[in-house]
Amino acid sequence: MPEIILSINAGSSSVKVSVYKASTTDPSSRNPVLLAEAQIEGLTAPPATLKYERQKQDSPLDSPSHSFAGKSKEPFKIKGKKVGDITSQEDAFKWILDWLKKDDGLPELQDIEDIRYTCHRVVHGGDYPRSQVVDEDTYHHIETLSDLAPLHNAPALSIIRAVTKHLPHATNVAYFDSSFHATIPPHIHTYPIDQEIAKTNQLRKYGFHGISYKFIVNAVADHLSKPKSSLNIIALHLGSGASACCIKAGQSLDTSMGLTPLAGLPGATRSGSIDPSLVFHFTHEAGMPSSSSSTSMRITRAEEILNKQSGWKSLTGTTDFGEISSRGTPECELAFAIFVDRVLGYVASYFVKLGGEVDALVFSGGIGERGFRLRKSVVEGVRCLGFEIDEKRNESIEEGVVVDVGKEGARFRTLVCRTDEQLQMARGVLEERGRWEEAGESGKVGGG
Amino acid sequence: MPEIILSINAGSSSVKVSVYKASTTDPSSRNPVLLAEAQIEGLTAPPATLKYERQKQDSPLDSPSHSFAGKSKEPFKIKGKKVGDITSQEDAFKWILDWLKKDDGLPELQDIEDIRYTCHRVVHGGDYPRSQVVDEDTYHHIETLSDLAPLHNAPALSIIRAVTKHLPHATNVAYFDSSFHATIPPHIHTYPIDQEIAKTNQLRKYGFHGISYKFIVNAVADHLSKPKSSLNIIALHLGSGASACCIKAGQSLDTSMGLTPLAGLPGATRSGSIDPSLVFHFTHEAGMPSSSSSTSMRITRAEEILNKQSGWKSLTGTTDFGEISSRGTPECELAFAIFVDRVLGYVASYFVKLGGEVDALVFSGGIGERGFRLRKSVVEGVRCLGFEIDEKRNESIEEGVVVDVGKEGARFRTLVCRTDEQLQMARGVLEERGRWEEAGESGKVGGG
Repeated sequence: MPEIILSINAGSSSVKVSVYKASTTDPSSRNPVLLAEAQIEGLTAPPATLKYERQKQDSPLDSPSHSFAGKSKEPFKIKGKKVGDITSQEDAFKWILDWLKKDDGLPELQDIEDIRYTCHRVVHGGDYPRSQVVDEDTYHHIETLSDLAPLHNAPALSIIRAVTKHLPHATNVAYFDSSFHATIPPHIHTYPIDQEIAKTNQLRKYGFHGISYKFIVNAVADHLSKPKSSLNIIALHLGSGASACCIKAGQSLDTSMGLTPLAGLPGATRSGSIDPSLVFHFTHEAGMPSSSSSTSMRITRAEEILNKQSGWKSLTGTTDFGEISSRGTPECELAFAIFVDRVLGYVASYFVKLGGEVDALVFSGGIGERGFRLRKSVVEGVRCLGFEIDEKRNESIEEGVVVDVGKEGARFRTLVCRTDEQLQMARGVLEERGRWEEAGESGKVGGG
Repeated sequence: MPEIILSINAGSSSVKVSVYKASTTDPSSRNPVLLAEAQIEGLTAPPATLKYERQKQDSPLDSPSHSFAGKSKEPFKIKGKKVGDITSQEDAFKWILDWLKKDDGLPELQDIEDIRYTCHRVVHGGDYPRSQVVDEDTYHHIETLSDLAPLHNAPALSIIRAVTKHLPHATNVAYFDSSFHATIPPHIHTYPIDQEIAKTNQLRKYGFHGISYKFIVNAVADHLSKPKSSLNIIALHLGSGASACCIKAGQSLDTSMGLTPLAGLPGATRSGSIDPSLVFHFTHEAGMPSSSSSTSMRITRAEEILNKQSGWKSLTGTTDFGEISSRGTPECELAFAIFVDRVLGYVASYFVKLGGEVDALVFSGGIGERGFRLRKSVVEGVRCLGFEIDEKRNESIEEGVVVDVGKEGARFRTLVCRTDEQLQMARGVLEERGRWEEAGESGKVGGG
């Protein structure tokens, strides 16, 4: 029986499930095999739609695959399939689970009992320095610290509960975007505010995108044939949420996000760092509960405005950075220039933090991986530090997890890393098998 | 009759008045002569005290000075003199005016009719790109835009009204800390927020400490014998309020403060930039009016907390950075390291913004001028960019407006500039005499 791992990433408007199996040829391998990827999008803008991709079944040890849409043993893709009236993360997850079970081309998952592990990307993990098996205690702890980032943690929490209900036999592991940044030293993570309240209310820089940064460290260290423990990079995870990370000796030394993912770089609908008094001049209702608040989740108007109604959407009308990079209107050019300016600020700052000993500047995330104009502008902006782009390599980047786009002979390297948070979590599950077994079956959420 | 200029700098707890006269030997000279400096401190922590210093009267063209405390023609100093029950800026100004009139050692100011100009440091000048004669219209305009920074503009506004009442014959000129930054381009001054509200509510980066930065540009250009129009510097004005400024071709290209002086570097009681959602997790009353609010001035609890109850005071218990630099306790070392870290971030970012073409890194302001340990730490932090400190020069800096503290042979220079906002304003008054005469006597505030 194959060991199936589901990597689950729940956003405010989508649920993505990646299906992996542990290698059957080499049980000690930490590299799980991707079988399928299902994503339901548009939960907040119905009708929700499915994106599904199943890998080619070509391993000789696999059982013969069943027919599915007449395409057995071949890669299979669906996009934009309407899935009806699905508006909650839990319903989306249930729908996907059902879909996976029924896919004859996915013989490894005919029975949900085959799902051994589920991993969940949880944005805010407070002080957790690593992943946690979700039992009753950790669930409640995650719930409590989610007060710090209710907009960001709520989707994952609802999926964790759903998994507990629908897959009671599986081990639920929470991966936190904040854990990678547990190494940030006090003079960088401390805010200069009342320290008693800071302690009581757990107010410090946490940082996010850590699952991605961990993947990047592994991949770039491999690519450069360097031990992680001596890898210094400036990493940029640029997507609809964007951040920068200063990585010294393989560990996070600083990052642009803060107490919540709002701080730092602007994003699709996020303002990023702005004058902390601005929102009180934006609205007199800054401190009032927003309409998305509920009894269990307190969100202020300010947080709603700065997280959901700002960013390049507010400048250009679109959240699509590809369009912003190419449309050429004054609004788009302004948004583009703002983003480049803010990214450059962090690259410069982290370069100095590393004392100029930098193995590479690394672009990743949707925009980092696809935005060649952005990469060009950023790299040209730090030319004085010794970075140079190879225009040809940059415009059509090669296949591969890590790709060089820097100019031959430049003082420092410039890389693109195709980051994969789902895979990073699934790998983590296999690497730390021992920990989950210790944690045992004791305290599943809600008693299973 | 000498032309007397009063440069007035009103803070939340102090009023400082510098008395200048236009050069009588050379009427075209833009360099006014400092006669005396009076400061009342402790308005919010009575009893208020006087600090007074009168310059030595050594110009042969001066009328013979009257006796004052038996020290005629010699520098004369008082410090810590209790001045009784003075709690408002207006009362402090009246008291100082009276004191100046009565000082026999200050013969140039025996009659307040001799005061030709008063200049006022106004923190927030909105979009004003230069100084303004204060008439009824400009006064009301300054009052309106002070909604953006009520904590910062209120003291100056109350003095401007007092001057109009007590010195109806004088020309009142407002100098804005924001004007110098009018050259910051849109992609740097625009916040990625709803642009209609941004426009209506005038929400953009303004920047402050501009009077000081203008002084620094002039002084450093002189020191380096370079035209201002080709001067590129990274300037740091570090005092109880601290900021950094990227100056390209003599003009502001970026600065760390924002819509208000809260953004950017931390200060004595100011948090500086923090996650914009932090304050809502600090208190549920973030949006409520603070106790310092009045019918004419709306200040939220959040703004009060972040401006007045944060910064290194909240970390160490003291606002004295000299003490923080030397006390050696873990709290002080943390505060020191935080400040260095945040300063380095801006220096790095501005270095890149200048494409590495930097004439000097310039320290100024109380901490910048006296904090040798801070300078050392900052310069060592940007060693990888080509800055190096000369420890000896740094520890006991020479006399002079601009002093070199960089190591001989370092790629970039490091300077200390003894900035003087009072002098900068007084000079401005003389430089632009023509403008004030055009503005005429038409519209004094309150009709004089």
